[in-house]
Amino acid sequence: MQQKNYQQEILALIHSGLPQAELAEKLSDYHENDLADALAALTPDERQKLYAVLGVDTVAEIFSYLDDAEPYLKELPSDKAANVVSHMDSDDAVDALDDLEEEDKAKIVGQLDKNSAEDVKMLLSYGEDEIGSSMTTNYICIRKDMTIRQAMSELVKQAGENDNISTLYVVDENDKFYGAIDLKDLIIARAEDSLEKLIARSYPYVTDHEKISDCIDRIVDYAERSLPVLNDAGELVGIITSADVVELVDDEMGDDYAKLGGLTGEEDLNEGVFESVKKRLPWLVALLFLGMLVSSVVGAFESVVAVLPIVICFQSMVLDMAGNVGTQSLAVTIRVLVDENLTTSKKLHLLWKEMRVGLVNGALLAVMALGFLGCYIHFFKAYAWGQAFLLSGCVGFSLIVAMVISSLVGTVIPMLFHKIHIDPAVASGPLITTINDLVAVVVYYGLAMIVLIDMLHLG
Amino acid sequence: MQQKNYQQEILALIHSGLPQAELAEKLSDYHENDLADALAALTPDERQKLYAVLGVDTVAEIFSYLDDAEPYLKELPSDKAANVVSHMDSDDAVDALDDLEEEDKAKIVGQLDKNSAEDVKMLLSYGEDEIGSSMTTNYICIRKDMTIRQAMSELVKQAGENDNISTLYVVDENDKFYGAIDLKDLIIARAEDSLEKLIARSYPYVTDHEKISDCIDRIVDYAERSLPVLNDAGELVGIITSADVVELVDDEMGDDYAKLGGLTGEEDLNEGVFESVKKRLPWLVALLFLGMLVSSVVGAFESVVAVLPIVICFQSMVLDMAGNVGTQSLAVTIRVLVDENLTTSKKLHLLWKEMRVGLVNGALLAVMALGFLGCYIHFFKAYAWGQAFLLSGCVGFSLIVAMVISSLVGTVIPMLFHKIHIDPAVASGPLITTINDLVAVVVYYGLAMIVLIDMLHLG
Repeated sequence: MQQKNYQQEILALIHSGLPQAELAEKLSDYHENDLADALAALTPDERQKLYAVLGVDTVAEIFSYLDDAEPYLKELPSDKAANVVSHMDSDDAVDALDDLEEEDKAKIVGQLDKNSAEDVKMLLSYGEDEIGSSMTTNYICIRKDMTIRQAMSELVKQAGENDNISTLYVVDENDKFYGAIDLKDLIIARAEDSLEKLIARSYPYVTDHEKISDCIDRIVDYAERSLPVLNDAGELVGIITSADVVELVDDEMGDDYAKLGGLTGEEDLNEGVFESVKKRLPWLVALLFLGMLVSSVVGAFESVVAVLPIVICFQSMVLDMAGNVGTQSLAVTIRVLVDENLTTSKKLHLLWKEMRVGLVNGALLAVMALGFLGCYIHFFKAYAWGQAFLLSGCVGFSLIVAMVISSLVGTVIPMLFHKIHIDPAVASGPLITTINDLVAVVVYYGLAMIVLIDMLHLG
Repeated sequence: MQQKNYQQEILALIHSGLPQAELAEKLSDYHENDLADALAALTPDERQKLYAVLGVDTVAEIFSYLDDAEPYLKELPSDKAANVVSHMDSDDAVDALDDLEEEDKAKIVGQLDKNSAEDVKMLLSYGEDEIGSSMTTNYICIRKDMTIRQAMSELVKQAGENDNISTLYVVDENDKFYGAIDLKDLIIARAEDSLEKLIARSYPYVTDHEKISDCIDRIVDYAERSLPVLNDAGELVGIITSADVVELVDDEMGDDYAKLGGLTGEEDLNEGVFESVKKRLPWLVALLFLGMLVSSVVGAFESVVAVLPIVICFQSMVLDMAGNVGTQSLAVTIRVLVDENLTTSKKLHLLWKEMRVGLVNGALLAVMALGFLGCYIHFFKAYAWGQAFLLSGCVGFSLIVAMVISSLVGTVIPMLFHKIHIDPAVASGPLITTINDLVAVVVYYGLAMIVLIDMLHLG
């Protein structure tokens, strides 16, 4: 079973010169996403003809699937563009409008039909990090006092305009959210049943001003095709569909991923050099200055290096290992912190666990370092066996201490930032690297100074 | 609008001593996910009573929402447990069975009803990374030669057992996948229309043995409530629901995130110390030995340090910055590589861009380092202005070279691994760190040796 190349088929159809009605019928067999992919391969003229064949409803759906709707909206006269946007789901409409420059956007918004204009205005009124900004207003809504038959015919009436029909939302006489009906239950209900019995009264919901990062886990947990969004008065203002959830999860995780990689935001292939520089530079500048701080501490141990230059060989190793362990703890802690319900005892539990993991890993690596480096120093640097193992022992011991402390720092710092409501994913990385570098430098060179030089007079 | 505590309400209801029928009616208002959350707060006896009140269909749905079904399945007699699992969606059933130990699992699988046993067996036959392992067999399937009225009554018949009704899948007389019908279109169709007209013939699909990582982006793009999964013969074997997609996206991104953080897999709070050690140690051991390689290269420059100990102050800074830039490039490249259609010219474009980003960032940071470090060396290390700026110039120049090369290495290495079908997210990190460390060490100490010591006789 080979994947078919639908895009090729679609282009062949469009270029086939079939009569309009037949073309429309054939194209209706294809998914709007595949039609959207085909748009780029057409000339502006062919696109105009295609739009006329397909009708505004389908065109609106196709436009919802475009990564960047701007070039296609711009080649339409603004009243036609407004008509297409008016027929899109409200969240898709906002996304498409966001692709445009302010001037073009204002022109189209001014010509939207009344309902769409209101919906778009409402969605734009929410902050980008609020769940209200991601909802759609296309849902089926019925009154609680309807009969099953009335509900069914209301569904048929509203289904023409609204895609999300798997759950019917029920409001009371004051337009307050009353509950939800699974379409499946309505379909298999008998006409003489009471609607009330089908309504799940204690249905899960989110409120419009909730932060996406606060409620996304809850939304995912319910695994529903859609969840209602209520305002402070308890009125239904929109729904979050499963397609929205996929997008939100992707965004949230992509954000955490980018921040762990030292980027201030996700980048894609088409981004310009200077946009990328702008995203990466803040982090690098912070790290440079924190690196200078580490440098000045290393500088305090210049005397150790002057007496025993071999110690510098292993500095990068001790620092790198501390950094790696700190990053591991950070990566784990950040994901765990996303779970809002982390009690103090759970936090202490995590801290205790990370410390033990650091200790076990540190001890295992220290033994390896002791053995291998001892041999290396003896054979390649011509130190006596005793001195070689004193040196490698110093590295090994530093590894244990540095790794335990790095695990702790990598766990505590993001928790502290989370506590004072600073995004731990952004702020933790540089601070942890710096603290871990400092700890590793002080332990390693301090140990070398006290044990190797002061006590044993090596060098 | 406060979030209601549904769990508390549910517990109060269960403890209220209401008659069974009334309790069942009241509990039906709650979402199965909330009921699942309440299970843990009940005694085993209360749970048994609750199951009897709710009936096996609802209990099966509740069990689908449990993070770990094992304790609850184990307290049931195996025939009852098998009955619950038989009523679950096939993918949820497999998940629940996977929570059990082999012995318990075999006992329950042996008692599943015939259909469920077949479905579970089929799902288990796929590799964990194949899309077939994540699909469900609960979907509505009709024959292409039905009338609208027949299709509607078939829907009502099948809806009792199948949750995913928003899309009806159509097969031909040989059980081959023929197309899909949007439930909405069926609902608003008139009885005298032909069913054929409603069927989207060129509907998107995935094949059962496709790798999840290969098709997840395509699935997300279609933003559908479900997509059909076909086998090699073109027969419909299951569907991927939007809830599955959310899970898959979360897993894929979580995997990339963990790997970027130096973990071999995502960890959660409840994992034991030794499991965590096992996940983190392989990476650390690899890094330790690669670190030894770097150490031996640093060792070659011992003579530089012996003559000019101040150069060691800035080693950590140059190496850290090279590492940071490499990680940024790596993070960007890994996400871009996920896009399968990366042509050679796009790859070169990315490489060229990363190099320029590295150059611009490197140059900006080099100027800062030159100024600040020059002053620091002059004032705190008592070098003359000229010598101070020679030293800081050496750091600055090393920064530029190291950052450009690190950007390249951070881009090329994951591309190479991707080319030879090794997961770039796993393998790239340590290799990039090591190469970048080596480059930075050689450039920095080499420059110090040639320019500062050999040419200018500093130290």
